[in-house]
Amino acid sequence: MKIETLRWFNDRLEMIDQRILPAAFEYLSYYSAASVAEGIRSMVVRGAPAIGVAAAYGVALEALRLSEEPSTLRSFDKLRTGGAQGERTEFDKGMEEGFTVLAASRPTAVNLFWALQRMRKVWVSVATQTPQQVAQRLLAEAHEILAEDIRINKAMGANGAALLKDGARVLTHCNAGALATAGWGTALGVFRSAVEAGKKISVIADETRPFLQGARLTAWEMVQENIPVTLITDNMAGHLMAHGEVDAVVVGTDRVAANGDVANKIGTYMVAVLAKRHNIPFYVACPLSTIDLNIATGADIPIEERSVDEVKGFRDNHWAAQGVKIRNPAFDVTPAELVTGLITEKGVILQPDVQGIRKLMAG
Amino acid sequence: MKIETLRWFNDRLEMIDQRILPAAFEYLSYYSAASVAEGIRSMVVRGAPAIGVAAAYGVALEALRLSEEPSTLRSFDKLRTGGAQGERTEFDKGMEEGFTVLAASRPTAVNLFWALQRMRKVWVSVATQTPQQVAQRLLAEAHEILAEDIRINKAMGANGAALLKDGARVLTHCNAGALATAGWGTALGVFRSAVEAGKKISVIADETRPFLQGARLTAWEMVQENIPVTLITDNMAGHLMAHGEVDAVVVGTDRVAANGDVANKIGTYMVAVLAKRHNIPFYVACPLSTIDLNIATGADIPIEERSVDEVKGFRDNHWAAQGVKIRNPAFDVTPAELVTGLITEKGVILQPDVQGIRKLMAG
Repeated sequence: MKIETLRWFNDRLEMIDQRILPAAFEYLSYYSAASVAEGIRSMVVRGAPAIGVAAAYGVALEALRLSEEPSTLRSFDKLRTGGAQGERTEFDKGMEEGFTVLAASRPTAVNLFWALQRMRKVWVSVATQTPQQVAQRLLAEAHEILAEDIRINKAMGANGAALLKDGARVLTHCNAGALATAGWGTALGVFRSAVEAGKKISVIADETRPFLQGARLTAWEMVQENIPVTLITDNMAGHLMAHGEVDAVVVGTDRVAANGDVANKIGTYMVAVLAKRHNIPFYVACPLSTIDLNIATGADIPIEERSVDEVKGFRDNHWAAQGVKIRNPAFDVTPAELVTGLITEKGVILQPDVQGIRKLMAG
Repeated sequence: MKIETLRWFNDRLEMIDQRILPAAFEYLSYYSAASVAEGIRSMVVRGAPAIGVAAAYGVALEALRLSEEPSTLRSFDKLRTGGAQGERTEFDKGMEEGFTVLAASRPTAVNLFWALQRMRKVWVSVATQTPQQVAQRLLAEAHEILAEDIRINKAMGANGAALLKDGARVLTHCNAGALATAGWGTALGVFRSAVEAGKKISVIADETRPFLQGARLTAWEMVQENIPVTLITDNMAGHLMAHGEVDAVVVGTDRVAANGDVANKIGTYMVAVLAKRHNIPFYVACPLSTIDLNIATGADIPIEERSVDEVKGFRDNHWAAQGVKIRNPAFDVTPAELVTGLITEKGVILQPDVQGIRKLMAG
């Protein structure tokens, strides 16, 4: 089964509802920037690359919507300022609002901002075209970002697979799989590529509280692929490492700072510290779109704090004692010193630092 | 509200059902060794000291049951071997079975075996008495073990409280509270004693998957006591430590080896490794009954693997992908080198090792 996390279908964006997997497999439809932003915020779609692709489609959908459904205001505006120029002014104003609402959906994954900037460039480059033409151009760009994401994941997968030895037992945290991307996956893409290359590997998946991406999504993806996968709770990784049951760690990332510090799902830092203690290589699969050269170190990466309801239990089943305060940081930062290598589509950066990252990105 | 985890009521043992806390607060009744063993196995009662107390009552209950309800076999046996001697032979055979079923309930907590051995000594010491007399003597011993446990916890609490500075933000894992003991608690007893001594402290509780002792039990106990408590998922401890939000760690233990290695709830090792990295003191509250001089190092402590159903979800709510393999080690071992101090009722053993432990136990 090929997992299409996002797909263009009947002139709308459809996304797998990742909140209800694996119990149910359903697509939800999106028609506007605001609805896509809400889909990102509520984690119908999650995973940095997938969020980027969703945001690109959000921009395209907004352009289609604004160009196809002229509002009263826009008609008035058209009369007032005169013809196509007025229509484009109103359209551009609506588009700006669409960009704003998408940018405010989630703060940590840089791919969101990367995709929005790429879409904005296209938008600006077609300043003299009609809204209908702009919308078609933006939709083509979103399609291209999706296709590119899969190509990049496969290149990254091949680069990462070379790092895993035959028989490796590889631990991963959260879900950096097909469901976190347009397809194939970053960390899980490395596993898929290793298997495709004939290596026998097995995966250990942290369940990843509170949203349980490991138990629900990574385990599900690996079962679909017939890649052996063992589920553990987040607090078991140290025990397994201490017993020599983990040969390598591969995770994804939401944003890498210029110095190689890695923001990823909460708990990644703990896994990295333990890997270091046990001399287990710790790899981060990151498309270049995840590297943010504008951020010097991990300390400057904004860390999202999500609703405390997520920690009270799971979905509507709340088990926490009433009256307890709750924290819910959704990400943490792993310092570059704990990262054995960054796996990108252009190659692997071992012991990442400012120089190594700039060199690869420029090269 | 004083928490009576176990209580003797109407000639039977009652234990709070810790599987349903905090949603419901209910006592379950026990009349035999086998039922107490099942209560321990299914985690109606949990926590090393509480398991020890429960096992002691299990022995007493079995003696009461066997002395009060003579079976057909016993009557026959009485005729065959003659009077009270025959009755006692059959009684002793039943008692031996009771000890066996209790010893098989859970493998890791040494307090279970410590309590059984203490009860066995009493049993052996009254070899010439009638079953009724033996039962009363064993019941008195169980009462004494319960009372002693609370006294020990309070002494341990005072010793531990001295280690916490005013205003300390203290992280704990699992539940080493009143619910894990006969009352007051080991790690949470240290917090109670610190507050009683006038210190303002606040507690950070790991939720402690899969049984959620932190979210359900520790959070509940601290809310009852009006001690400020913040709940986090197990994978957030590293993030908080990296941000300077944790001043100390205090946990309980199920068994300490002669060299100071500490077995405790799965995930404790990860917390200890992180505390070391961040120079945060890591204390273990352990009554002397938890120290097992017969075990040289943590590598020899038996680690219980529990049902995979616990990791699939919580109670009947299963969220894990179907077809995934699952591991469920219930405990891990923290090497002595990571332990800043063992807090016992006789004093604190800093940087615990074979010599320090033997000296305190002998002293």
